[in-house]
Amino acid sequence: MWCQSCREAYEERDAGTCKECYEEASETEEELKREIDDLKSKVAFLRLASPLDDLASTTDLLLHAVLSPSGSNSATCATPAIPAHRAILVSSPLLSSFFFFFFCTCCTTCNWQFISRSPVFKAMLENEMEESRSGIIKIHDVSYYVLRSFVHYLYTAEVLLDEHMACELLILAEKYQVKHLKIFCEKFMTSKVNNDNAIGNYAFAHRHSAKQLLEAALSLIIENMATLTEREEYKELVEKDPRLVVEIYEAYLTRQVNTAAKDSTT
Amino acid sequence: MWCQSCREAYEERDAGTCKECYEEASETEEELKREIDDLKSKVAFLRLASPLDDLASTTDLLLHAVLSPSGSNSATCATPAIPAHRAILVSSPLLSSFFFFFFCTCCTTCNWQFISRSPVFKAMLENEMEESRSGIIKIHDVSYYVLRSFVHYLYTAEVLLDEHMACELLILAEKYQVKHLKIFCEKFMTSKVNNDNAIGNYAFAHRHSAKQLLEAALSLIIENMATLTEREEYKELVEKDPRLVVEIYEAYLTRQVNTAAKDSTT
Repeated sequence: MWCQSCREAYEERDAGTCKECYEEASETEEELKREIDDLKSKVAFLRLASPLDDLASTTDLLLHAVLSPSGSNSATCATPAIPAHRAILVSSPLLSSFFFFFFCTCCTTCNWQFISRSPVFKAMLENEMEESRSGIIKIHDVSYYVLRSFVHYLYTAEVLLDEHMACELLILAEKYQVKHLKIFCEKFMTSKVNNDNAIGNYAFAHRHSAKQLLEAALSLIIENMATLTEREEYKELVEKDPRLVVEIYEAYLTRQVNTAAKDSTT
Repeated sequence: MWCQSCREAYEERDAGTCKECYEEASETEEELKREIDDLKSKVAFLRLASPLDDLASTTDLLLHAVLSPSGSNSATCATPAIPAHRAILVSSPLLSSFFFFFFCTCCTTCNWQFISRSPVFKAMLENEMEESRSGIIKIHDVSYYVLRSFVHYLYTAEVLLDEHMACELLILAEKYQVKHLKIFCEKFMTSKVNNDNAIGNYAFAHRHSAKQLLEAALSLIIENMATLTEREEYKELVEKDPRLVVEIYEAYLTRQVNTAAKDSTT
């Protein structure tokens, strides 16, 4: 027999699909690719010019990165302010509005979640707080470069991550409730979990409710229990937050019990 | 043999793929679906609250639909004005900027086009024209409902189309150079081409440089040449724009010549 995909001969025991299913699958792939192209062009259309890109743009807000942990009002801001637009920072599509149901072409089938950019900025700027009156927002405990990436993401949904930037941005995204960015950073960090950073990531994931990252890190820790107690990060964690260490042992025990139960039934 | 997809038996002559290719194809499909999910959540994040949805939003522009063709300044606007934000109407990501190359995670591979929302609004509002000073933009020869859908699209990339709305919006999208919307409307109109509207759509596509629609309509007209001259729309087109009718005949002739050439070689 000849495979219609790789064009090579194969035996009966290596058979995959019949002709009909093969043709259907090819059509499905083409359809999915068309959908991807449509979505990509929609993203390109919806993406906004970041004020960091478009210097000619008139903005009505200034964001200052303040590294001083005290957060006192007299703190001077040595790094340049980052310009932004109120209209974009407060924007949050309303799921229940009349117009949404009237206009959306796919709301009944697509299961899209309408994620607002930042409910925290929205509340800050719409509720006559100091930031709203002055047009100046101080973001504490964050470096200028992280804040710049954060603002850029709010306009474009794009950012170039490394492990440090992902970690810093996840914290900022959590603080300002930018869910999409938090998920993006968590996914990146999860893809980078290894033996050396598993304990650190496990503790970080706990602090910032990052479930996917927590599970990946915990799973790797449990797979390497033999060397766990020798690690420096383990000793630090016992010192700082022993409850987390207890949870590691509990998860390990649960897995052992489950494996034993499985073995006894087979 | 058994098909791994539909689980039914098949003969050797109906073989599709080998097992390896079948498994690879399944993986590819899963990957494409994951990419679609990621893009959908990106679209949901980037989509803005239309000022028509979010009535509490502070806007700095008013758009008036003016149906009077004269366009005189004294024209009264009976329909309500549509609020909008300058920052969003003028937004156009700059492909060549430093920050884009610095931040974009996929610019070298994704081939996304950065499409500005409307270069016409951008020029109007950034060049100290009357509209920029007053914050009032009059959109002539368009109904209130079409303009409302147009503004909604600029924020959300969503619109519920029927054939009439698609036709009206395509004209507006062309006037204000909103390419993404023009393509969207053209695709919709192309999917609705039939024997009854082919001539009308052909003439429309010519006037508005809609190549895909033009080809679909022309192809259908040529397939039904026998009844062409009996149609009312044909007679109207001969009257109004005979050059377009000549083009139909030329395309028909070309196809006949090509078919004859093919037949003679086989």
